[in-house]
Amino acid sequence: MILVVCLNPALDITHEVAAADWAGVNRPDAVHARPGGKGLNVARVLLATGTPVRVLGLAGGPTGSGVISGLSAVRVKAEFTEIGAETRRTFTVVDRSRETSALFNEPGPRVTPEEFAAFAAGYERALDGAAAVVLSGSLPQGLPAGTYATLGRIAAAAGVPVVLDTHGEALRLGAAAGPAIVKPNLAELEVLAGRRLSRDQVAAAAGDLRAAGAQAVVVSLGPDGLHAVTADGGWRAAPPAAVTGNATGAGDAVTAALVRGLVLGQPWPDRLRHAVALGTASVLAPVAGEFSPEDYARTLDAVTVGFSPISRNAAPEQCGDPG
Amino acid sequence: MILVVCLNPALDITHEVAAADWAGVNRPDAVHARPGGKGLNVARVLLATGTPVRVLGLAGGPTGSGVISGLSAVRVKAEFTEIGAETRRTFTVVDRSRETSALFNEPGPRVTPEEFAAFAAGYERALDGAAAVVLSGSLPQGLPAGTYATLGRIAAAAGVPVVLDTHGEALRLGAAAGPAIVKPNLAELEVLAGRRLSRDQVAAAAGDLRAAGAQAVVVSLGPDGLHAVTADGGWRAAPPAAVTGNATGAGDAVTAALVRGLVLGQPWPDRLRHAVALGTASVLAPVAGEFSPEDYARTLDAVTVGFSPISRNAAPEQCGDPG
Repeated sequence: MILVVCLNPALDITHEVAAADWAGVNRPDAVHARPGGKGLNVARVLLATGTPVRVLGLAGGPTGSGVISGLSAVRVKAEFTEIGAETRRTFTVVDRSRETSALFNEPGPRVTPEEFAAFAAGYERALDGAAAVVLSGSLPQGLPAGTYATLGRIAAAAGVPVVLDTHGEALRLGAAAGPAIVKPNLAELEVLAGRRLSRDQVAAAAGDLRAAGAQAVVVSLGPDGLHAVTADGGWRAAPPAAVTGNATGAGDAVTAALVRGLVLGQPWPDRLRHAVALGTASVLAPVAGEFSPEDYARTLDAVTVGFSPISRNAAPEQCGDPG
Repeated sequence: MILVVCLNPALDITHEVAAADWAGVNRPDAVHARPGGKGLNVARVLLATGTPVRVLGLAGGPTGSGVISGLSAVRVKAEFTEIGAETRRTFTVVDRSRETSALFNEPGPRVTPEEFAAFAAGYERALDGAAAVVLSGSLPQGLPAGTYATLGRIAAAAGVPVVLDTHGEALRLGAAAGPAIVKPNLAELEVLAGRRLSRDQVAAAAGDLRAAGAQAVVVSLGPDGLHAVTADGGWRAAPPAAVTGNATGAGDAVTAALVRGLVLGQPWPDRLRHAVALGTASVLAPVAGEFSPEDYARTLDAVTVGFSPISRNAAPEQCGDPG
């Protein structure tokens, strides 16, 4: 069983309108409300690949109840520690006439130290029997930036490997706690590096992050695929061609494939191949956390993987060659 | 105690943004979630005028729980019959830079006959001890247009007078069930009349609605105040001057004043004076269902009321004279 931690879940509400009146009254002809947040996307992708998964998180108020009942409806096994503040909503208006979307993200609830302590106690118990832990997404207000580092050390003490997908200070501190894999995207790696990174500089910046404590760093590069820095060296995995679709949740599909590959003991080339294929299939699906098995299988055959054994501080020599 | 029926409540969610990006990601700096819907606005205004009130309604899902907990927070006594479908949300984006608001109204839930029967049983019990009933707002999906007529006849059998504020077929059928007062606004009266109405034609159209069964008809005319057709004749009550503000909920404040005046046995001129004053004070308040007592008292002194005893089918002779 893979444990997925989701400290700041959301209820994602989507209104579809034929043509939005931004200064008037609209009657959406389709309304969707789904549990959201990066961790929940990871959990749903894992479940769809047949991987046993258990979600642990924090939820509060009627919106928290909406997240819980929504997960139950899609049969995701989840336990949430109740908090006093209300779980956040995201609100998306899809304007079909303009082919645009407007997204409104509420700030997360404020979590108290007592509430986090109650969560951490349940987390420690749940590690017994977990094959790996995914720590994913932003931290809600009130929790220190070192929260993922703390949870990572608890997992390490229990002998459970960690995959970490977050950003900023929580990523920097979390990487130092020695997770098996960290998965920043390019923008998150640039924030950590303090500068824009060219394609050739990604390897060095990922190497720096690995040197800070992570056992492996996998950078998601959008349509350019993945760059991984592992104990063996650098890898570049790319989809056969750029696809257009809904990029929300694609990084979460990559994380799901990485933790699944870790638990299954897949060699890195296979792990990355699956990660690129699942990420690509996720872009092709209209809803984050979903994908079609056909897209996944078709892409898997066409992913290219290149290896650069020489150094984790240089770009691999071969990129995008047919693998 | 005044019983307020709210069959289709809503959770009103408001996001305030400095400048909305209608094709991108927004982080609202203020988020409000409040119980909404016409009946709940009436109940809150009644409570604020010191009138004991009890809300009966239908609510379902986490959004229904949000409505219930929000009412509990403002100490409105309410009992909701649980339904299987989810209570509706409304979503408003306030764009401060453009001084505009975009409103997105979800369709109401679908209510089953069994759920309505459970509600009606509780309604019949609650009529014992009620001084009046307010039937207010739209009907959720699944309930026939004659639902307010049914509830009105049950109240009549129990000897409890009814104030009805709805629109379309539910208004036409409900008026035929003999309520003490119906309160359409001008647009709703025009729909019933099947044509645009000049100021002088309002009296005749209101008279027709009264002839269909209502004991009194009070038409809200926005900044022009109220036109009432009662057993004695026609009345026109107007605020001292047009005010600008938030017109949402102003009609509900008028309904609250009318039912309060009915229960207190106020003569029609006083009833209308209070109704215009509460409606005007409501416009001046930023949130529907609220008003400042100072605005209410100040406006009350300045409302003008004119009476036309001759006919309920002609415009009153004196309108807007200092009363």
